Amino acid sequence: MSAQPIDPYDDPAEPVARRAALPLDSVDPVFPLHRGGKIEVRPTVRIRDREGLSLAYTPGVATVCRAIAAQPDLVWDYTWKGNTVAVVSDGTAVLGLGDIGPAAAMPVMEGKALLFKEFGGVDAVPVCLDCTGVDELVETVARLAPSFGGINLEDISAPRCFEVERRLQERLDIPVFHDDQHGTAIVTLAALRSAARLTDRDLADTQVVVSGAGAAGVAITRFLLAAGVGDVIVVDSRGIVSRERADLSPVKRDLAATTNSTGRTGDVSDALRGADVLVGVSGGTIPERAVAGMASDAIVFAMANPDPEVHPEIAARHARVVATGRSDHPNQINNVLAFPGVFRGALQVRATQITEGMKVAAAQALSDLVAQDLREDYIVPSVFDPRVAPAVAEAVAGAARDDGVARR
Amino acid sequence: MSAQPIDPYDDPAEPVARRAALPLDSVDPVFPLHRGGKIEVRPTVRIRDREGLSLAYTPGVATVCRAIAAQPDLVWDYTWKGNTVAVVSDGTAVLGLGDIGPAAAMPVMEGKALLFKEFGGVDAVPVCLDCTGVDELVETVARLAPSFGGINLEDISAPRCFEVERRLQERLDIPVFHDDQHGTAIVTLAALRSAARLTDRDLADTQVVVSGAGAAGVAITRFLLAAGVGDVIVVDSRGIVSRERADLSPVKRDLAATTNSTGRTGDVSDALRGADVLVGVSGGTIPERAVAGMASDAIVFAMANPDPEVHPEIAARHARVVATGRSDHPNQINNVLAFPGVFRGALQVRATQITEGMKVAAAQALSDLVAQDLREDYIVPSVFDPRVAPAVAEAVAGAARDDGVARR
Repeated sequence: MSAQPIDPYDDPAEPVARRAALPLDSVDPVFPLHRGGKIEVRPTVRIRDREGLSLAYTPGVATVCRAIAAQPDLVWDYTWKGNTVAVVSDGTAVLGLGDIGPAAAMPVMEGKALLFKEFGGVDAVPVCLDCTGVDELVETVARLAPSFGGINLEDISAPRCFEVERRLQERLDIPVFHDDQHGTAIVTLAALRSAARLTDRDLADTQVVVSGAGAAGVAITRFLLAAGVGDVIVVDSRGIVSRERADLSPVKRDLAATTNSTGRTGDVSDALRGADVLVGVSGGTIPERAVAGMASDAIVFAMANPDPEVHPEIAARHARVVATGRSDHPNQINNVLAFPGVFRGALQVRATQITEGMKVAAAQALSDLVAQDLREDYIVPSVFDPRVAPAVAEAVAGAARDDGVARR
Repeated sequence: MSAQPIDPYDDPAEPVARRAALPLDSVDPVFPLHRGGKIEVRPTVRIRDREGLSLAYTPGVATVCRAIAAQPDLVWDYTWKGNTVAVVSDGTAVLGLGDIGPAAAMPVMEGKALLFKEFGGVDAVPVCLDCTGVDELVETVARLAPSFGGINLEDISAPRCFEVERRLQERLDIPVFHDDQHGTAIVTLAALRSAARLTDRDLADTQVVVSGAGAAGVAITRFLLAAGVGDVIVVDSRGIVSRERADLSPVKRDLAATTNSTGRTGDVSDALRGADVLVGVSGGTIPERAVAGMASDAIVFAMANPDPEVHPEIAARHARVVATGRSDHPNQINNVLAFPGVFRGALQVRATQITEGMKVAAAQALSDLVAQDLREDYIVPSVFDPRVAPAVAEAVAGAARDDGVARR
């Protein structure tokens, strides 16, 4: 046959090194690394001659189009949809930078696409949208969904992100997953399981304080409660979220109804008094004296990046297990442990959504990977551990079947 | 540095050959070739360790985001936007298959993306949209435009395609190019220049008949007139388009005002009587006796695919130069001669639009490539001629600068 799968692609794009240097390239080594982007599209079939062209494109391609028109599920087999995810952002909550817009968000979404392929073998396309209204975001993503096997929402600010995700998942028959929420929640639960085991705690008797009530804080709280954590107290910039507060948004009112079972009030120090676990996703600062008031054998996840809410060395004076979001400290709680495997598993079974069960299974798979070698400084696997994505994918695929959301 | 450009990517996706066979795979050799899609996303940088991760992704990527937020044009240098095109369709006019919807259109858009890379070195992403209204299409494409350096519209039915393209081009600062119109028109003009030269015709004295008033027919007519062709007569399914007809759509009324200067009426045979050139883009059938009535040394481009309006062997009885849209006959008038080079040239200079001048320059470049070896069966280059895309790109980039639409 004159058109064949190729590997490797032997007509490489112009190497980055050959491009003329720009002024910024010498300012910081990140700039030359990002020149021209970090991903490319490559053919998986090589066209050698007219016959190959007529098989891969017209007129041969019409046979494939007709087959899909007659039997729509074939799109999963005969296009790249079955392995492809859109990484969608409106650029309103990019890293710690805030609302920097769709163009400036592109380097992050490309980075995400790079990690999707490198760690999960998933093809991912960055899609940065020039609109921010909930209706517009939902409509736009729904319209472009036919080309993709899943939607990874990214860096969309709260509280819009909650409604955007919910409405899209109701409308679409492919997984819609806001990684800032659920990726973070999955890895946090995995780390918490490990830390609880190290400190002989039962999740059902564990008092957790979540500092921060943005996308990650809300999702972590919901997920920990669903996974059986005894009680969570949420603290936002105005103090403990409680039923007594009159200034709560609808999302926080819902949180107040399901958290803080003892009706505590006050600031983060009041919340942490006697608490077992601190989960910091606020980006703010938590004073040492507040951490000092926690229970013995305390667990501190100070995940703000690049500056943890409490420095890990200070936290270690009062806590037995300390984790951060940083790569230069032990126990990095990094979403890349979750999202490549989660989507790989979901795509593998052509899941219609990502259920709570699939997320719990992903967390369980992550903590299982470190169970044999558990130590205070090894509660989650390394992001470079090659077992991670396959284990997460397998667990997620299995849970999708159990939950009845797998197409195969 | 721990994160480097890679080439080749040494962690290949699962080869197509290893995938389990599906029932359709043995029905037709096109099926195994299209299994899993024809393109993939690949990293252009390899992450080897935590330091690499922190340069390519967080926290290092924030430096690039901040730079783009401060100076938006840097998105062209430090993301893949500068080399990337969206291939957008609503699936309403796919090949000759008609309105088969966005999922069934995917194999064509993927094929287009494959050709963009293979022939033009351009990264292209298939985007099949689940909406067909003009307002919805315009809004959706405008919202996703920040991620791309150009928009290739494809297989959107007439007359919506004209308004969608016009409104998008007015709104966006990147090229919007409906290939079914302009790609076809460019290659047709190139072929016509060559054929006119062979038959000692001056374009200004040439009578052309365009059979078909869909997207391609309308665009070819407008483009040939803009390029100086003496007169065009357009024929649709109801006969010659003339000012006397009361059944014309707004687009055809415009055509009637600028074509058919002698006010001819009747059917395609009446149109062809004494005509120099037939351009068939109708998908219908043209009887031999109609072709027999053309001028001596006639030129026939019967471009319907897979079935030309008049079989090339029959046409050759009456015409000196015959071309088709098929790869198994000489003189294949194929869009792939144009679109990879057109976008490569436009992206090279970061053009804000594709002007008439850029399209004329592309056609000129194509006919120049065959000028030295011009023969009746060699009026356009082969699609596999490696000179094509670079020559077209250079001509298009130069014309963009001349027309003041180049950013650099």
